[in-house]
Amino acid sequence: MGKGLTKREDDYSQWYNELVLKAGLAEHSDVRGCMVIKPYGFAIWELMKEDLDKRFKETGHVNAYFPLFIPKSYLSKEAEHVEGFAKECAVVTHYRLKTNPNGPGVIVDPEAKLEEELIVRPTSETIIWNSYRNWIQSYRDLPLLINQWANVVRWELRTRLFLRTSEFLWQEGHTAHALKQEAIEEAERMLHVYADFAEEVMAMPVIKGLKSPNERFAGALETYCIEALMQDGKALQAGTSHFLGQNFAKAFDVKYTDKEGKDEFVWATSWGVSTRLMGALIMTHSDDEGLILPPKLAPFHAVIIPFFLKNKPEINEKLMTKANQMADDLRKAGIRVQIDADETKRPGFKFAEYELKGYPTRIVIGPRDLENGTVEIARRDTKLKETLSSDDIVGVIQNLLDNIESNLLKKAKEFRLNNTHQVSNYEEFKSVLESKGGFIEAEWDGTSETEEKIKEETGATIRCIPLENNLPNGLCIYSGNKAKFKVLFARAY
Amino acid sequence: MGKGLTKREDDYSQWYNELVLKAGLAEHSDVRGCMVIKPYGFAIWELMKEDLDKRFKETGHVNAYFPLFIPKSYLSKEAEHVEGFAKECAVVTHYRLKTNPNGPGVIVDPEAKLEEELIVRPTSETIIWNSYRNWIQSYRDLPLLINQWANVVRWELRTRLFLRTSEFLWQEGHTAHALKQEAIEEAERMLHVYADFAEEVMAMPVIKGLKSPNERFAGALETYCIEALMQDGKALQAGTSHFLGQNFAKAFDVKYTDKEGKDEFVWATSWGVSTRLMGALIMTHSDDEGLILPPKLAPFHAVIIPFFLKNKPEINEKLMTKANQMADDLRKAGIRVQIDADETKRPGFKFAEYELKGYPTRIVIGPRDLENGTVEIARRDTKLKETLSSDDIVGVIQNLLDNIESNLLKKAKEFRLNNTHQVSNYEEFKSVLESKGGFIEAEWDGTSETEEKIKEETGATIRCIPLENNLPNGLCIYSGNKAKFKVLFARAY
Repeated sequence: MGKGLTKREDDYSQWYNELVLKAGLAEHSDVRGCMVIKPYGFAIWELMKEDLDKRFKETGHVNAYFPLFIPKSYLSKEAEHVEGFAKECAVVTHYRLKTNPNGPGVIVDPEAKLEEELIVRPTSETIIWNSYRNWIQSYRDLPLLINQWANVVRWELRTRLFLRTSEFLWQEGHTAHALKQEAIEEAERMLHVYADFAEEVMAMPVIKGLKSPNERFAGALETYCIEALMQDGKALQAGTSHFLGQNFAKAFDVKYTDKEGKDEFVWATSWGVSTRLMGALIMTHSDDEGLILPPKLAPFHAVIIPFFLKNKPEINEKLMTKANQMADDLRKAGIRVQIDADETKRPGFKFAEYELKGYPTRIVIGPRDLENGTVEIARRDTKLKETLSSDDIVGVIQNLLDNIESNLLKKAKEFRLNNTHQVSNYEEFKSVLESKGGFIEAEWDGTSETEEKIKEETGATIRCIPLENNLPNGLCIYSGNKAKFKVLFARAY
Repeated sequence: MGKGLTKREDDYSQWYNELVLKAGLAEHSDVRGCMVIKPYGFAIWELMKEDLDKRFKETGHVNAYFPLFIPKSYLSKEAEHVEGFAKECAVVTHYRLKTNPNGPGVIVDPEAKLEEELIVRPTSETIIWNSYRNWIQSYRDLPLLINQWANVVRWELRTRLFLRTSEFLWQEGHTAHALKQEAIEEAERMLHVYADFAEEVMAMPVIKGLKSPNERFAGALETYCIEALMQDGKALQAGTSHFLGQNFAKAFDVKYTDKEGKDEFVWATSWGVSTRLMGALIMTHSDDEGLILPPKLAPFHAVIIPFFLKNKPEINEKLMTKANQMADDLRKAGIRVQIDADETKRPGFKFAEYELKGYPTRIVIGPRDLENGTVEIARRDTKLKETLSSDDIVGVIQNLLDNIESNLLKKAKEFRLNNTHQVSNYEEFKSVLESKGGFIEAEWDGTSETEEKIKEETGATIRCIPLENNLPNGLCIYSGNKAKFKVLFARAY
């Protein structure tokens, strides 16, 4: 039973925390709010990065790297932007330590005070647009399509591994365009890239939508988002793409000369996903026995466990030979496979271990299998086992992996369907929210006041105005005024 | 003529600075000492990363991620370590900004002062070994072979793009071993990995050696290094690998229980290469026309330039069809190719541009080539041009790229051979250093005093005690005492 993992129905939050630790994905560091991403967790993140990076390059983007530090005055240049980030900034004020004259250790050297404080980037719009001023002169320099993989810091008071940490890893795309319409199309294009990645790779269905004005990125004219639904009925914002208008171009004076020789401000987008996706991945698929990983993001697709006998070295050697043969064949076919030949641990212990870690498939070979030319194959998602001929192990595992990947998406889609509810009045809204959770489709008058009241009273927020199927045909559930949109509400991470 | 690039013989340093800027590799940011790595430069770094990462994984290492911030007290735990880094630390003291009550903009909120200051990591031994304490209990947990790709900050007063910047990108391996000998072998293994990468991928020959005690990493018992020779006769340390003994294990109390049940301190290594390699790459191969890139690190292996005619759209269309055909064929063979179909720029202008950027090969196709079934192919390294049949364009370019890669290494090796001098006394040493530069092989008595005197008087330092061919057979060139090693001196970056 999952090595003593708390059950989801008993305490979902506790289950999540334990799973992240026990599966070896990440842990808290001694630095408040900062996590250590452990090798197994980082291997999953690397697979995410690799796939996303390919999608960014296929849509014409190139990578670059901008400074970690942002001068305080830059952050202030876009008024809403600084308003949004000022309260959670790590500030560098000095550049040297010195020996403590009054005791052991070192102290900050008061003489090494910076003239202007530096902010550890919470996001890079300001430092990047300061560079773009020099990079963009003419319409020929546009569009500029740049992405950066980086660490960022937002000082969080309450942190949770992957979901909310003071330092996190992410990518941030920053693009510059000649025309408003091009920038809007770019922001939408990247939203679709994120949604495709979520569905095709993470097996996680998402709703594409627009944030309400209250929930927009600080400095954006429009924030697009993808929203996923976790097993506990809470929503999770998995990625955002912002149409920034000309705000940053104006703040940093970035103009281009158009074909007619006229100077115009540039139009901007930015878009990002982060290690938060790790939390979304874990909470979408995993169960009380541990992690369930879609094969495309599994560091190992399969583990081969030889069922050793005590004091039978000649049989055990044959088991190892067979295990190695299979591993070779699988690797040649691009399947990531590991053999666990540790004789000090019993098979049952190993089974639980690899279930906890979410290996999509397990191949067990015992002495009788050697005689019969068979193996026992188990799949992690449904926990079904089958004894099959070992002749076509590659084909069997390949099919199984495809099947697991699509089964996980199917299951997650069904879950979302079963946990999306339509309500027509506020009483029903509150009742569904309390009894069922999930996404709640409701009609909204489009005002911030209504949105805030509902949030205050119920804890639910507007996750998004879906891009599709957002037309209302009645009255706002809260104000009773004419509805402007049909939106998705939920409690959220 | 390289778009007005200063000639190397006129001012090597100026040539380097201009080249980095004009080839679009990197530029200074407004944040003192921090660079912006531009897309073309970053693409080269990505190719380096990809190859190195593969080598690390092949030698059994996995990636992880540790916090950006290090509590000040951690840095102090290893005495030599803090001594080495204290003078160049970026220090975070506050975690919030607030609106300036007395004027525009924001100020640091004095109420948001951290109890303990955080150092932006200059290197991660301390924060990592603090985690290792919890990860290592038994000999079964060893060896622990972890690498991290990260940004680090060392506050530098005089900075140069790629060579010395306050923030730089690097990888840092941190390994833990049960036995001393295993740790030494690991440090040596990774040195060889670096040296192989330098030769096989960067086409840059390096000398493997040990640093003298004066030049060791702060906290190491032994520092291995690879040293390369730049075209101006100055050496460049391209990578280091440290045997750390039990220093960090003792500072962070990291013990393991061995097979006999006895507790022992763990043995450590760390090793790293950084974006400094970009500087080494540029200065090893490039010329007065611009960058020269070994094909394995070239973002594009070839550019195809159709030689358009004015007012002949039907011919130009045929040229484009042929260019696209060739590009398709080349891409299918894994060759990274770009077509430059910009009709507003003349071919001669384009030739200079791609020479500046170091594209290894150039394929030009004009109207006569269409008739003859030929193309003109130029190689960047020797600038030789040839008109060849376009039938086997893939084979021709593949051969050419192989040839360029090996030719660059051969040329760099010859350069080093011609610029490595043996001297038998101090007068000769000084005269060779002034007149020729390069690596100077000389015998040394093994004392820090001698090393420091020579440095003071000549500016040359001991680059390394080579792993091979380091036995002396006479007297120290400076002190006249019995020599302990034959070492390599040079002025260095």
